[in-house]
Amino acid sequence: MRDVCVIGLGLIGGSLLRAASAAGRAAWGATASGADATAAAGDGFDASTDVAAALRRAAEADALVVLAVPLTEVDDVLREVRECAPGCLLTDVTSVKSPVLAAVRAHAPGTRFAGGHPMAGTTESGWDAGDGSLFRGAAWVVCVEEDTDLVAWTEVARLALDIGAHVVPLPAAAHDEAAARISHLPHLLAAVLATVGAQGGPAALTLAAGSYTDGTRVAGTRPELVRAMTEGNREALLPVLDEALGRLGAMRGSLASTGGLAATITAGNEAAREFARFRAATPAGVRVKLSAPDARDGLRAVGERGGRITAITDGIATGEVS
Amino acid sequence: MRDVCVIGLGLIGGSLLRAASAAGRAAWGATASGADATAAAGDGFDASTDVAAALRRAAEADALVVLAVPLTEVDDVLREVRECAPGCLLTDVTSVKSPVLAAVRAHAPGTRFAGGHPMAGTTESGWDAGDGSLFRGAAWVVCVEEDTDLVAWTEVARLALDIGAHVVPLPAAAHDEAAARISHLPHLLAAVLATVGAQGGPAALTLAAGSYTDGTRVAGTRPELVRAMTEGNREALLPVLDEALGRLGAMRGSLASTGGLAATITAGNEAAREFARFRAATPAGVRVKLSAPDARDGLRAVGERGGRITAITDGIATGEVS
Repeated sequence: MRDVCVIGLGLIGGSLLRAASAAGRAAWGATASGADATAAAGDGFDASTDVAAALRRAAEADALVVLAVPLTEVDDVLREVRECAPGCLLTDVTSVKSPVLAAVRAHAPGTRFAGGHPMAGTTESGWDAGDGSLFRGAAWVVCVEEDTDLVAWTEVARLALDIGAHVVPLPAAAHDEAAARISHLPHLLAAVLATVGAQGGPAALTLAAGSYTDGTRVAGTRPELVRAMTEGNREALLPVLDEALGRLGAMRGSLASTGGLAATITAGNEAAREFARFRAATPAGVRVKLSAPDARDGLRAVGERGGRITAITDGIATGEVS
Repeated sequence: MRDVCVIGLGLIGGSLLRAASAAGRAAWGATASGADATAAAGDGFDASTDVAAALRRAAEADALVVLAVPLTEVDDVLREVRECAPGCLLTDVTSVKSPVLAAVRAHAPGTRFAGGHPMAGTTESGWDAGDGSLFRGAAWVVCVEEDTDLVAWTEVARLALDIGAHVVPLPAAAHDEAAARISHLPHLLAAVLATVGAQGGPAALTLAAGSYTDGTRVAGTRPELVRAMTEGNREALLPVLDEALGRLGAMRGSLASTGGLAATITAGNEAAREFARFRAATPAGVRVKLSAPDARDGLRAVGERGGRITAITDGIATGEVS
């Protein structure tokens, strides 16, 4: 089992260091945060504030390096990677994938990189909020581009599987578009709905029932987290926002002119039933031979069909599609 | 206890006939639906398809007449009320209040009317879906205009209290604006979110987590129900839709230009915390003497402060405000 070096020991990095250690891997971490490093070391983990030393050790051990820092710090850490572990196996756990891929190509082009995004988290942050079981049952996107190093991809996928996640193989751009649709747009609509509801004052709030409570629940998420994921995904989010605004504008026009909302409401209901059918569908088995010349296409097809990889054995990735 | 005559024996009317009977009132119903009338009579209730006879009996007994028909049928039933019970005590249970108020003024101006809206329901419809405990713990808006007959208001409020609801006194226009903000806008945003998410195909749906699931839950509501409430509230809904579209457009502009979403996200978070504080606030007692010259102002102030009436005794309405 390959060693793991985690840079950044907040909620996700800290949970990963715990989970990798618990899975029997040699794992160490480093972070610019003295508080997180001290807390991690105090909990008995191999952790320090010396990022450069941790990376040099990764280079010597040919470990998998995991960047678990905020998007705004990725460039700086990549420069350290280029300096201390220029050819390492590399992944990240940031919530947007195309900007990180571009940054790796710009700042650490010699690394063997496959980006990742575990779809897990809580509203807390910092080492103390971490939990080694955080990834159990979670979807973990591991990115497959045309030129992705399949050794790196397999190492990242194995780590995710080892700690209880299942792997969704997708290109970075497909991940970012999907995240815009099913996470970033919902957060922004929730924010606007919460605001428009509260503008109605106590008379509105006292009548609020399920539709408002459900629709505004994620508006309570910490603003820094929502800003980081939405602003970081600007390129993929803008066309999705425009799609939503186009539909809302057409709906407004229809209500003002004919008074009818059938098109909007029927389409929404059909989409809701499609989602329910997708969730309830019986999955079929799938297998991808990782040494095949078209392995990248095979993996991407799994993700694009809404499927997942649940095991990798003897060079064969197996899983299910809906 | 005043007798109750329910016109329309679907989910709400049928539940009301059951609840009023269980509360010890003399109660009868009529409906144009032969199926509902037969089912109600089969369950031992005093129910028929002869709406005119039921209304004449209400006129003789000076009963409270409750219109529990869809908005689209209100005008026709009001013409029968004018014919058979022109001076009766009258209320309704429709989900929009200004259009019904206007219809009563146009078609049955001699009635003593106070509009109502019990905030209760299920996704089912018809007599068989009814339940005598449906209104227990629910908010029931009973409208107070400048010229509302306080005897009628009190009779409607007493019926609501008798069957387990609490009463929110509000003008029709305030009810309709509040409903647009906390019910109709959420349903429409959920429909658009469901559609935009499903447009992402299986890759998006497989990554969907809490924000999408919560934000689209009510998109599964029966389209007829959502159309009836949103299209029926067109006048109040349009400015609320425009408020939401204005905020969404400003957000889109900010993301495209500066890349920042802080204003939207921070405002949404503050609104969510305001809603949570409102829900958690310790209520204070309130009392309104129904024979006082400013009783209507006193009642409206309760609703506008997010409060509710929980009892009426000896001409005094008591309740709480947050």
